[in-house]
Amino acid sequence: MLIQLTENCSGQELQEIYAVVKGIGYKPSPVKTQFGSYIICTGKARVDIRLVGNLAGVRDVHVVSDPSKLVSRLWKVNTTEIPLGDDMKISRNRFTIGMGPCSIENEEQVVQMVTFLKKNGIQLMRGGIFKPRSSPYSFRGLGIDGLKIFSEHCRANGIRIVSEVMQVSQIGEMHDYVDIFQVGTRNSQNFNLLDELGRVDKPVLLKRGMSSTLDELLASAEYIFSNGNEKIILCERGIRTFEKAYRNTLDLNAIPYLKEKSHLPVFSDPSHGVGVRAYVEAMALASVMAGADGLLMEIHETPERAISDGDQSLNLMEAERAIHRIRETVRFRDGLNHA
Amino acid sequence: MLIQLTENCSGQELQEIYAVVKGIGYKPSPVKTQFGSYIICTGKARVDIRLVGNLAGVRDVHVVSDPSKLVSRLWKVNTTEIPLGDDMKISRNRFTIGMGPCSIENEEQVVQMVTFLKKNGIQLMRGGIFKPRSSPYSFRGLGIDGLKIFSEHCRANGIRIVSEVMQVSQIGEMHDYVDIFQVGTRNSQNFNLLDELGRVDKPVLLKRGMSSTLDELLASAEYIFSNGNEKIILCERGIRTFEKAYRNTLDLNAIPYLKEKSHLPVFSDPSHGVGVRAYVEAMALASVMAGADGLLMEIHETPERAISDGDQSLNLMEAERAIHRIRETVRFRDGLNHA
Amino acid sequence: MLIQLTENCSGQELQEIYAVVKGIGYKPSPVKTQFGSYIICTGKARVDIRLVGNLAGVRDVHVVSDPSKLVSRLWKVNTTEIPLGDDMKISRNRFTIGMGPCSIENEEQVVQMVTFLKKNGIQLMRGGIFKPRSSPYSFRGLGIDGLKIFSEHCRANGIRIVSEVMQVSQIGEMHDYVDIFQVGTRNSQNFNLLDELGRVDKPVLLKRGMSSTLDELLASAEYIFSNGNEKIILCERGIRTFEKAYRNTLDLNAIPYLKEKSHLPVFSDPSHGVGVRAYVEAMALASVMAGADGLLMEIHETPERAISDGDQSLNLMEAERAIHRIRETVRFRDGLNHA
Amino acid sequence: MLIQLTENCSGQELQEIYAVVKGIGYKPSPVKTQFGSYIICTGKARVDIRLVGNLAGVRDVHVVSDPSKLVSRLWKVNTTEIPLGDDMKISRNRFTIGMGPCSIENEEQVVQMVTFLKKNGIQLMRGGIFKPRSSPYSFRGLGIDGLKIFSEHCRANGIRIVSEVMQVSQIGEMHDYVDIFQVGTRNSQNFNLLDELGRVDKPVLLKRGMSSTLDELLASAEYIFSNGNEKIILCERGIRTFEKAYRNTLDLNAIPYLKEKSHLPVFSDPSHGVGVRAYVEAMALASVMAGADGLLMEIHETPERAISDGDQSLNLMEAERAIHRIRETVRFRDGLNHA
Repeated sequence: MLIQLTENCSGQELQEIYAVVKGIGYKPSPVKTQFGSYIICTGKARVDIRLVGNLAGVRDVHVVSDPSKLVSRLWKVNTTEIPLGDDMKISRNRFTIGMGPCSIENEEQVVQMVTFLKKNGIQLMRGGIFKPRSSPYSFRGLGIDGLKIFSEHCRANGIRIVSEVMQVSQIGEMHDYVDIFQVGTRNSQNFNLLDELGRVDKPVLLKRGMSSTLDELLASAEYIFSNGNEKIILCERGIRTFEKAYRNTLDLNAIPYLKEKSHLPVFSDPSHGVGVRAYVEAMALASVMAGADGLLMEIHETPERAISDGDQSLNLMEAERAIHRIRETVRFRDGLNHA
Repeated sequence: MLIQLTENCSGQELQEIYAVVKGIGYKPSPVKTQFGSYIICTGKARVDIRLVGNLAGVRDVHVVSDPSKLVSRLWKVNTTEIPLGDDMKISRNRFTIGMGPCSIENEEQVVQMVTFLKKNGIQLMRGGIFKPRSSPYSFRGLGIDGLKIFSEHCRANGIRIVSEVMQVSQIGEMHDYVDIFQVGTRNSQNFNLLDELGRVDKPVLLKRGMSSTLDELLASAEYIFSNGNEKIILCERGIRTFEKAYRNTLDLNAIPYLKEKSHLPVFSDPSHGVGVRAYVEAMALASVMAGADGLLMEIHETPERAISDGDQSLNLMEAERAIHRIRETVRFRDGLNHA
Repeated sequence: MLIQLTENCSGQELQEIYAVVKGIGYKPSPVKTQFGSYIICTGKARVDIRLVGNLAGVRDVHVVSDPSKLVSRLWKVNTTEIPLGDDMKISRNRFTIGMGPCSIENEEQVVQMVTFLKKNGIQLMRGGIFKPRSSPYSFRGLGIDGLKIFSEHCRANGIRIVSEVMQVSQIGEMHDYVDIFQVGTRNSQNFNLLDELGRVDKPVLLKRGMSSTLDELLASAEYIFSNGNEKIILCERGIRTFEKAYRNTLDLNAIPYLKEKSHLPVFSDPSHGVGVRAYVEAMALASVMAGADGLLMEIHETPERAISDGDQSLNLMEAERAIHRIRETVRFRDGLNHA
Repeated sequence: MLIQLTENCSGQELQEIYAVVKGIGYKPSPVKTQFGSYIICTGKARVDIRLVGNLAGVRDVHVVSDPSKLVSRLWKVNTTEIPLGDDMKISRNRFTIGMGPCSIENEEQVVQMVTFLKKNGIQLMRGGIFKPRSSPYSFRGLGIDGLKIFSEHCRANGIRIVSEVMQVSQIGEMHDYVDIFQVGTRNSQNFNLLDELGRVDKPVLLKRGMSSTLDELLASAEYIFSNGNEKIILCERGIRTFEKAYRNTLDLNAIPYLKEKSHLPVFSDPSHGVGVRAYVEAMALASVMAGADGLLMEIHETPERAISDGDQSLNLMEAERAIHRIRETVRFRDGLNHA
């Protein structure tokens, strides 16, 4: 059961609601976010929701049978919109393309990328400054200093930044320089990190664990939401299977499933999803038709020389072509849906 | 090494070619199909292909490093076209939609389906008459008698039939009543069946094994081709993963991979690929944008009452909508590619 | 519901039983095997089994909730024993080791193997004469002529043969020369083959499909049993996963699960299960402690020169050591269980 | 290339070594642990190791082709022993059984467990105080206060504690109260956590990620070692597959592989590995015969009432039986190996 509270629900009213909830054998968990106040009530008894619905301070009550309550579509008619300042927002009603290198390598690269993105009207740049690497001897990113340079150039050009955060202590360090915190596939069930990101007022782009089920992905999103942050983007990025012909298996079934089960925006990452440069554009367009609300893609000025993920990064010419075709496909899709 | 022979290569010339091939330490395997004569030469030595290329009777010689030779794109510039009589053909240059029930249940159903397909301009009907079922007590199809009825109505209306063959002895029985033999996911590596289908002059639609790699799928196609039948359609239909939210995981990465590696047409089966009716259309459109040359989809007049696969079958209203949208998407894709 | 009939159940009694079963809304499927007569009744209504239990001709009635009825442990107190002539049998009460090369390569090899096995007291020899190979250009086995030689030497030395059958037409050809038909991993759901093997009075060793669930394996066994053959051995042989360090992932969890769910003997094939020679013995011993009733292992006189599967075949010295250690471990296990 | 330094290698000598390493085109990374000083040199050129081997301050030089260097068996003849104080140690030469509840629930339980373990001669107790849970509304452990109680009773009875650490900030909090830090399957690639655990002088038990390859597990161990902590225990705990009959698929192939590739002790966790109480003992004994150096098992005084993982926890009677049989099996194995 999910209770939405009125904006001005008083302490007294809250106590009364708690008493009733406990009286019917449920355990109430209060949640306060940027957008509202809720009480999640977990329990097993069958309940007449009118018992709660008529109390002062209650805006609405919903029976939510899904295991993840707050991120479920069962109680929210509208879908979640995530404002990014100015006219920018992440939403099911506006398609977002985020692009950039796997790792930020140096300032020159940032300048080149920002110029490219600006020229092509892309308002979101990805780029790792803390990199999870399988070997401890590999390049692990430029760190906070790299992020500051990254941020400076993006800010100056009206471009938003999404970058991966790997641990709790980095949240504070990164906070002022990123617009969206990314949680990578290896941290998809790092519950302490999710808890902390729930206490921050910046959007979180949550990647699916490489062997997570979709219900686990939704549960991870529930961690963030239940700590106070509703600004969550779900992202499919390929799962691990027995197939050896490509890096991962992009699971586009996930897109319609997540859009039906949740009110959150759903992105696809075709770069990691297939991991082979020649197939990335096709998988981007397929993602659009599967219903994705946005894409995250790796590009590089010279993929052959990239420090990481060069095999799956588009060069700038390929990226330009892909942007054009993605936009055409989105336009076509919107036309189809509104016909 | 793959040697293409001239049409009128004589026995004498052939003997000479064999002698040279063996002389350089290779093992020659002759292949004669509807479309040409080949010699597949397997061996490890580095060879100057001019030694063979200049022999009488040789049309062309190719070094094919792929493990599956005849189905490889490395020697064939054009893609394979599969004529189905009249103006119909399966080809990368013409999109094919195949639809029909999981199992043919009765004549009334066939009539209803044929009427529906004809009205919507669909020229290929799918329908099982031998059904692989996990329980021996389940309905296992109407058998040959069902196929005769199925065939009669389709023939009368210019509709082609694709239906699953499960064992060698059925090939002869089914031969006169089907236009395309389907090999199901459980028989994808039934090598004796593949061998025999290579000796038949009817097209074969080969589904990927539910845990086969794509190189194994290509090797299965090589079995058919090397026995004499070039008319092969590859079909992605979902793989088995840990995800429980849907029946299978449709692996659309497979589409661009197979199209790059092979010259054969590549289909997608979104019905089995996701197994949830509400998501089938989205996955069909995604398949188109990933580059599929055709779709195989399950429909049923009343899915709630279907003997098998009702959960993933579209009803006729949904099917009509899907057909329209698939065709729009194909048109859009073709426009994009020719822009 | 599973009805066991008395040995001398008359036609009249049978008709009466059928009438009652149908009367309560169930569909009866008769099954007659080497060991008994049964009626499998499928339906959904709740039934008082005494209605059937008291009829003439009925030996016993069981409610079997498992989807696979005849192979289920729920109705059979004793486990299945499979006699192989003389004093030999496959049983949960006697451990069986089967060994031999992947493919039978020539007569000299057979002689060498038979000598080795006899010296070491091994009574079951494996060896492929029809080989499923991923490439059509690979060696596909010596065929029936090879089997005749294989059989001659084994018969002369009291050794039983288990060899893979790949299609229905081979059953007749092979019948007089094998003691156990093996169904390989690629044919684990080849339902026509399973049907036909159910009509033969020779044991069947059924390997798990490389991505089959255990309930699918049991359903495949149900196909054989329901066609009349109770002599079935289940065999775990490794599943396909994302791990690349070895060929397959031997799933020993399967052993206690299958032994609990079914009354059939359960074997393990550590050679295919791990696919790396150095680890085969450890996995054989682990299989014993997991509860396996037998092992199937690949050995070769010179693994480095084996036509197939040399990487996972033990040489004769390794095999001798493994046999000794397996027997010690079985003895230890039996002592533990009877302490 | 891995350079072992002498104990008293001087700063001057070190500089000279660095200069030579760089001179041959390698990048040196210094590592100082409890047990020694090393330089890991990464590069691609072929090198005559005598160039380095003859320098002052160098104890030994090894070419280590494995991607993970320090944990590789290629340079270390002896296996790693991990002392735990008094006579206790984790080692390939002494089998360790660790037991305890999934979560520490209350003091009474701790007392009961400690009594049970002491009576049965078990010196290592597991128990979660920070619990990773898929739902944010589930019980997440007693936290540090629970650990203090846990620790008090164990210390008083000479029992060591292994407990999961979920984030960097918990390391300091937990440090004085645990004997072994456990890294759970969801944090197996939490590289920041691994880095920090490398800076602590307490052993780390590292569980395999639920979809990690074994080379990734070794790379995660390399993170810990390269930060200065050699006291690492690897633990197989089941991987995620398509099989639904049990929770995970215990991959015992991993045991001989890890023991061959690494010098670290290797444990198995049959409780998570199969997740079904009735099969846990069989999988424990199988783990022993596969070569495990220790086991981690969940037990509970009343599994039916456990807050978490009750389905896979043995009750005390079952645990007692399992301990006895595990010890018998270890004794048998040791006899076999030394025969």
